[in-house]
Amino acid sequence: MKMIKNAAGRMVPSEVNGVEQIPFKGIGKYKPTGNKAKPPIRTCADYPADGNKIVKDLKTALKKAGLKNGMTISTHHHLRNGDVLTNLLFDTIKSMGVKNIRWYPSASFPCHEHLIQYLEDGTIHHIEGSMNGPLGRYTTEGKMKGVGVLRSHGGRYQAVQDGDVHIDIAVIASPTADPFGNANGVTGNAACGLLGFALADSEYADQVICVTDNLVPFPCVPWQIQGNNVDHVVEIESLGDASKIVSGTTQITKSPDRLLIAEYTARFVKESGILKNGFSFQAGAGGTSLAFAIYLKEMMKEANIKARFIRGGSTKYLVEMLEEGLTDYILDGQTFDLEGVRSMRENPNHINTSPFTSYNYHGKGNFASMLDCVVLGATEVDINFNANVATHSDGYLLHGIGGWQNCLASKCTILAIPSFRDRIPVVVDEVTTVCGPGELVDVIITERGIAINPKRKDLLKAVKDTDLPITTIKKIKSEIDEICGKNPAKPKLNRDKVVAVIKWVDGTLLDSVYQVVK
Amino acid sequence: MKMIKNAAGRMVPSEVNGVEQIPFKGIGKYKPTGNKAKPPIRTCADYPADGNKIVKDLKTALKKAGLKNGMTISTHHHLRNGDVLTNLLFDTIKSMGVKNIRWYPSASFPCHEHLIQYLEDGTIHHIEGSMNGPLGRYTTEGKMKGVGVLRSHGGRYQAVQDGDVHIDIAVIASPTADPFGNANGVTGNAACGLLGFALADSEYADQVICVTDNLVPFPCVPWQIQGNNVDHVVEIESLGDASKIVSGTTQITKSPDRLLIAEYTARFVKESGILKNGFSFQAGAGGTSLAFAIYLKEMMKEANIKARFIRGGSTKYLVEMLEEGLTDYILDGQTFDLEGVRSMRENPNHINTSPFTSYNYHGKGNFASMLDCVVLGATEVDINFNANVATHSDGYLLHGIGGWQNCLASKCTILAIPSFRDRIPVVVDEVTTVCGPGELVDVIITERGIAINPKRKDLLKAVKDTDLPITTIKKIKSEIDEICGKNPAKPKLNRDKVVAVIKWVDGTLLDSVYQVVK
Repeated sequence: MKMIKNAAGRMVPSEVNGVEQIPFKGIGKYKPTGNKAKPPIRTCADYPADGNKIVKDLKTALKKAGLKNGMTISTHHHLRNGDVLTNLLFDTIKSMGVKNIRWYPSASFPCHEHLIQYLEDGTIHHIEGSMNGPLGRYTTEGKMKGVGVLRSHGGRYQAVQDGDVHIDIAVIASPTADPFGNANGVTGNAACGLLGFALADSEYADQVICVTDNLVPFPCVPWQIQGNNVDHVVEIESLGDASKIVSGTTQITKSPDRLLIAEYTARFVKESGILKNGFSFQAGAGGTSLAFAIYLKEMMKEANIKARFIRGGSTKYLVEMLEEGLTDYILDGQTFDLEGVRSMRENPNHINTSPFTSYNYHGKGNFASMLDCVVLGATEVDINFNANVATHSDGYLLHGIGGWQNCLASKCTILAIPSFRDRIPVVVDEVTTVCGPGELVDVIITERGIAINPKRKDLLKAVKDTDLPITTIKKIKSEIDEICGKNPAKPKLNRDKVVAVIKWVDGTLLDSVYQVVK
Repeated sequence: MKMIKNAAGRMVPSEVNGVEQIPFKGIGKYKPTGNKAKPPIRTCADYPADGNKIVKDLKTALKKAGLKNGMTISTHHHLRNGDVLTNLLFDTIKSMGVKNIRWYPSASFPCHEHLIQYLEDGTIHHIEGSMNGPLGRYTTEGKMKGVGVLRSHGGRYQAVQDGDVHIDIAVIASPTADPFGNANGVTGNAACGLLGFALADSEYADQVICVTDNLVPFPCVPWQIQGNNVDHVVEIESLGDASKIVSGTTQITKSPDRLLIAEYTARFVKESGILKNGFSFQAGAGGTSLAFAIYLKEMMKEANIKARFIRGGSTKYLVEMLEEGLTDYILDGQTFDLEGVRSMRENPNHINTSPFTSYNYHGKGNFASMLDCVVLGATEVDINFNANVATHSDGYLLHGIGGWQNCLASKCTILAIPSFRDRIPVVVDEVTTVCGPGELVDVIITERGIAINPKRKDLLKAVKDTDLPITTIKKIKSEIDEICGKNPAKPKLNRDKVVAVIKWVDGTLLDSVYQVVK
């Protein structure tokens, strides 16, 4: 293994967990030449004719699926911090004495801190997937046996589709399912809206186990996961804590600075001419993004403008816009609150999407690049517009990439961020970790003004005669240097130990995360 | 090439069109061992970021798709006898001077007689797909250059999925589509309900061309065909003649004999105990099947019985049952009339299915085997319950297999057929062509009574004490011998020339169709 400088100027390892890597070559520069993964051909002769694939418990299902040492097991994160199944799954694997599992979640959450014991005792060898919170901290401290691999939602689909990651057994938490394995997330105690993050797993894994706490007679409609891809169905008492799966309400920011950022962002979208009939946008479920959506909504009503589609993560605020006729469709990848779940269940114009439709870079196009604008956050952004979403300035890996990298493909990518947090600069000379190359970041909006990427002469021109607080990233930087001090303390990193890598959407290596030395 | 006797006792060629074949080995006996087809990996870098894949005409799309001699081109048959696109497609291919195309339709119809000129002049080498009417006649007369290959709907999906048939270019008639290639059949002038027969094509073809006469702004919802699988979009004036795509009304039989058969069938379903709360059935859109559904409906209302699901081909009669609350769901593979299209568009419980969900034998189960009963037709059935649906007793290949073979997997397969037609026996000593092995045919219901397959002792017992006209297949045979003559004229066949083959649902060869000598 050696370290190579990639096209983003970052050092990345030549191999990760024994697999050779391709360093990032620039946006759109790496052209794949191979063929997709090819799952084994099955026959109905080996499956029950009456469609009943129920087995008595998870252990039985894992046995039938042929679980053994060193396998790759996947899970999805639609149950977020309310997920009970994944912990139960690894308790079961531990009880079976199986070791060295590669865990391939679409993301992990604080509730998965329970799994640290299995990283310690060798049940889990390493994690490939976003690590939010405790597992990220554990990884950054250099304690995980293998190297963490972080991918975007689209990159995870791409990796499975392309055969970069072969899933032996997919375990799919299914809020509603039938004995055939058709499943959805719109109903049941653990309703989470949809199951798109498990789509690749269901299509490409050798063995697929559907686990539900709400078994219904065939057919389970809608079948967001198709029973024709499922091998075994397991009923358990509870998939998780509904109150932590989706919050009843999502909180708009109350911070005056964040509200100002949100207002600047909405005004930018309006005054740059993006806001027009038939436009589209995506914003997250963070407090600033929600406030942005509310400001934008008022502007849309005032100007009598209707969107063609809004991309979710949905919240009650987007649902209101759909129900008030301010958009034709919500194209949704995950529902962040109960209103999102209800709307997806009831409203045929609230559409279930997946990382395949929306984010897979190795498809024949995807939805992300069709968005007129997207409003995202970041932990850091640098004076070259490179942005970080995974690590903090202290070097700790605490967040997943989610759809963030994929969304950078939009026609106008806006990072709506405070210029500093707790006296730690957000705008920096060089980001700790590059998750998004600067050439894809079009606008940075802070409480100190709006910095447009010099590459986007069209946007600079569009807002020239407005009274928007247009500034430059360097000006913002020097202003906060005054407040935070010019050279904030850098973390002590052991550059000889890569603890995790950041994949770009095309499967190439964009950056490395290093061990933090206390 | 040599002829081999298969497990059904039929002679089949060892190779077809240069490809080695596996003879039928018995139901569930052939176990595939390989992997699915693996389409090339694409990259968004090669597709327009704004999602606009429109090219100016079909010729341009075919050029961009790399059309050349000897390629395999697929089409679907949802436009049935109103299809204009397929003829236009081959006119275009002819105009480009391209030869020796293997045409891989999901079915062909009388309107495709236009293509005989292209079989003559070498534009089309041969057809793999159901041939209804003129093309079947042409083939049976030994005029096609290659050998026809007939597959069921499920078998067609299986062949594509397994890589038995590699589609170079799929051309998908899309009643509504957006510039990205999302498409559906529920709206537009050529609305045909759904596009399931093109699903495999969209997933596995190297190049996918979506052709529409109703272009809408992105997103086209629902996306029955996913734009992420589509390469090019072409707008044309008209896909076809709406009145021939779906009939305004579907005709119930007026024949007293057929009505009697329908009534016997409904009574059999009731009195054998199949009719109970939560049951399921499938029946076609033929006159007898429709009459059966109407009899059954009355029985359901009388007994206060509700089905869990009905499988379509849907008609207004099934839609009425859904709307009157006599079934929870229609799981539909094609809509046969305008009411079916409307219901699929409007009713969330009228579900779009595909050959993948319903019929693919090389999946992890499929819907067909979960049906409590299915009512089918046949051109011939023999005293061993083997049945024919493709050829007539005169040897001519005039019908496709459709979903018929796949439906034989149901828990109770009923052939509801007249014992003879135009003084030609339907019940015979040996069928001209075996399309369905006798062991899967459970009940034959004719105007002369009901013959239960002796293997189904449970059904024989269930109806023992009813006043149903239970008889035997041999008794029916001897009764019609009296009427039609014991040994009806056999067609003159050239057994040295196989003009087409019948695939079983697992891709093995079930039977051969021979040249008819006049």
